[in-house]
Amino acid sequence: MTPPLPLHGLRVLDLTRVLAGPYCTMLLADLGAEVVKIERPGSGDDARQFGPFMENGDSAYFASINRGKKSVALDLKQEADRATFLRLVEKADVLVENFRPGTMESFGLPSQRLREINPRLIVASATGFGQTGPDSRRAAYDVIIQALSGLMSITGYDSSQPARVGNSISDILTGLFTALGIVAALRQCDATGTGCDLDLSMLECTVATLENAVTRFAVSGQPPTPLGTRHPSIAPFQAFQAADGQFVIAAGNDTLWHRLCEVLAAPELLADPKLATNRDRAANLDHLEACLNVRLAHRPIREWLALLAAAGVPAAPIRHLGEVVADPHLQARGIWHYVQNGDNPSLLTAGTPFVIDGHKPTLSPMWPKLGEHTERVLREWLGST
Amino acid sequence: MTPPLPLHGLRVLDLTRVLAGPYCTMLLADLGAEVVKIERPGSGDDARQFGPFMENGDSAYFASINRGKKSVALDLKQEADRATFLRLVEKADVLVENFRPGTMESFGLPSQRLREINPRLIVASATGFGQTGPDSRRAAYDVIIQALSGLMSITGYDSSQPARVGNSISDILTGLFTALGIVAALRQCDATGTGCDLDLSMLECTVATLENAVTRFAVSGQPPTPLGTRHPSIAPFQAFQAADGQFVIAAGNDTLWHRLCEVLAAPELLADPKLATNRDRAANLDHLEACLNVRLAHRPIREWLALLAAAGVPAAPIRHLGEVVADPHLQARGIWHYVQNGDNPSLLTAGTPFVIDGHKPTLSPMWPKLGEHTERVLREWLGST
Repeated sequence: MTPPLPLHGLRVLDLTRVLAGPYCTMLLADLGAEVVKIERPGSGDDARQFGPFMENGDSAYFASINRGKKSVALDLKQEADRATFLRLVEKADVLVENFRPGTMESFGLPSQRLREINPRLIVASATGFGQTGPDSRRAAYDVIIQALSGLMSITGYDSSQPARVGNSISDILTGLFTALGIVAALRQCDATGTGCDLDLSMLECTVATLENAVTRFAVSGQPPTPLGTRHPSIAPFQAFQAADGQFVIAAGNDTLWHRLCEVLAAPELLADPKLATNRDRAANLDHLEACLNVRLAHRPIREWLALLAAAGVPAAPIRHLGEVVADPHLQARGIWHYVQNGDNPSLLTAGTPFVIDGHKPTLSPMWPKLGEHTERVLREWLGST
Repeated sequence: MTPPLPLHGLRVLDLTRVLAGPYCTMLLADLGAEVVKIERPGSGDDARQFGPFMENGDSAYFASINRGKKSVALDLKQEADRATFLRLVEKADVLVENFRPGTMESFGLPSQRLREINPRLIVASATGFGQTGPDSRRAAYDVIIQALSGLMSITGYDSSQPARVGNSISDILTGLFTALGIVAALRQCDATGTGCDLDLSMLECTVATLENAVTRFAVSGQPPTPLGTRHPSIAPFQAFQAADGQFVIAAGNDTLWHRLCEVLAAPELLADPKLATNRDRAANLDHLEACLNVRLAHRPIREWLALLAAAGVPAAPIRHLGEVVADPHLQARGIWHYVQNGDNPSLLTAGTPFVIDGHKPTLSPMWPKLGEHTERVLREWLGST
């Protein structure tokens, strides 16, 4: 018997679409909140049209980021539906939206009005650029924010051809920050009885994670550039070339460097003054990389990983998704989660990383069809249909 | 007059080092918690030795991720200091640690003992692989987790040479998930009077953010590969080549595609059946990219950005950190924050993305010297020194 989840009993009205907002409300649902997703009748969340698709044409992408939510179809441009929505607002603890600034006002639903109806309400907005500032009305997509935030400028191998992070990390980070802001604000609201407005922007949420890229710029005045797989101040801490491909080694201190040289049977590296300390190695990365690659080229990855593990030197293969899904450790931790609805086959997704008192939260196996819960939610929240 | 911050009054004992844990406790401090950083006398947090360094030799890196915390020097291997620590545990709401599993037990400080002393305590552990499972004792660094999680396999341009995300994103994500778990658990603890153990792993925190990479593998059985700057299912949504370098365009629907073709004065693209719908464009990415690059090559980035902005097509330069810091919008939003201690010059860092009721939380301008607050915290928390 597991205890109730930490957000059990919390009611969230979810007006979000696509990724950042839905990822936020999925986090809240995973932690026990009741999330009611308000969708436009007919088409619903834009992500319902995003690939990849399941055999019957439903979006697997949508299914993977909307587990455990209830879908209520309401057209906020129609007066009757808007009136129903405002009755739901009275019963909610949290409202989350990720429209462009001004859209809620255009529906006649500015935050002030919602909080007049329900003074305890927390109104969280997640947008590209935030509710204020000269660019606030600008449209944002993940790639735009990765480019504008500087994250793209430090990812990849070449300043003239930087890489986008392979997941939509600016959306994900914004979902995480917004969820954190909401749960923190609830604590204040529980104490004072008064809600608040939260205004999060994808651009700031991304900039706030750049850690030593900002610090290096602050100290040197030089903008950092892409480093491939290297770390700017720890070495060796990157991918190297074995006989059958690349793998990573992280020997972040001098003890680990000694052990690595022993595994390589390379006392000449230990004696090399250019490689003596971490600071030396970080200052001579090309030399370090060349020295190691030439010594690693004669064995396959599997053999190096076994030798390095035996010596206690952190190293790892660069796994593709098939290998990740097959990992016995991740399976033992229970990270994978299958979702289903109606006649679709069950779909593999990543579950939740939380483990509370030794238990994974029990996640819902369902994702909602458009409007599937309209009647039920109106009955349960409003006592009517 | 701004209201108190949402975590005002919360007492956090912080045993974390390096990045994931300190990022978590910085988030809690930014939201108003009192964070007391317990550091080993003499050397303290390992990150105090990490570059880049300020002129007087202090770590700018450490300063940038430890604002607003108090440093208390205690050696948990010494009985007298351990006894003091246990008296602090009685007064704390939250304890956060990111030692390898087993380390707290080796200090004689397993979670059970801490929670016997203080049943309301939330004990959060952030580790590479979690407290359980076959790999739980394995050492983790960001690059190891980026490689093992599959994130590296989808970042960059080439499967044989994938790229590491330019910031230590696995650490950052773990810091965010841990902070969210803590604040959610506090809500439960406020209701029941009982704390809990939280067990977060960097590996799961990273896997939990892979979104459509997992979905594509689930649907197709094919592991996704690096896509450069491209999106797997939206096009055009990537970097293109102008006369003087690359910039990004995100024309994620057919309306925006029409507008883009008009800006390019290219009716032949609108008539091309390979590019008719988003699904067609996403299926013919090489063709799309070639068609656009040849038409974009004759003007500089600045001109294209002006033309696309006028037409309402989302586009952006790939900015380096110097440009990001100079951005008037980010300055208006107040994302930059300076920290200082003693004789060091003030250091530029990224502040907090939260905006609550129109206000940025007031962040501390201080980062702590090792042991700077030992006397003060013992006096304030324990009424003695």
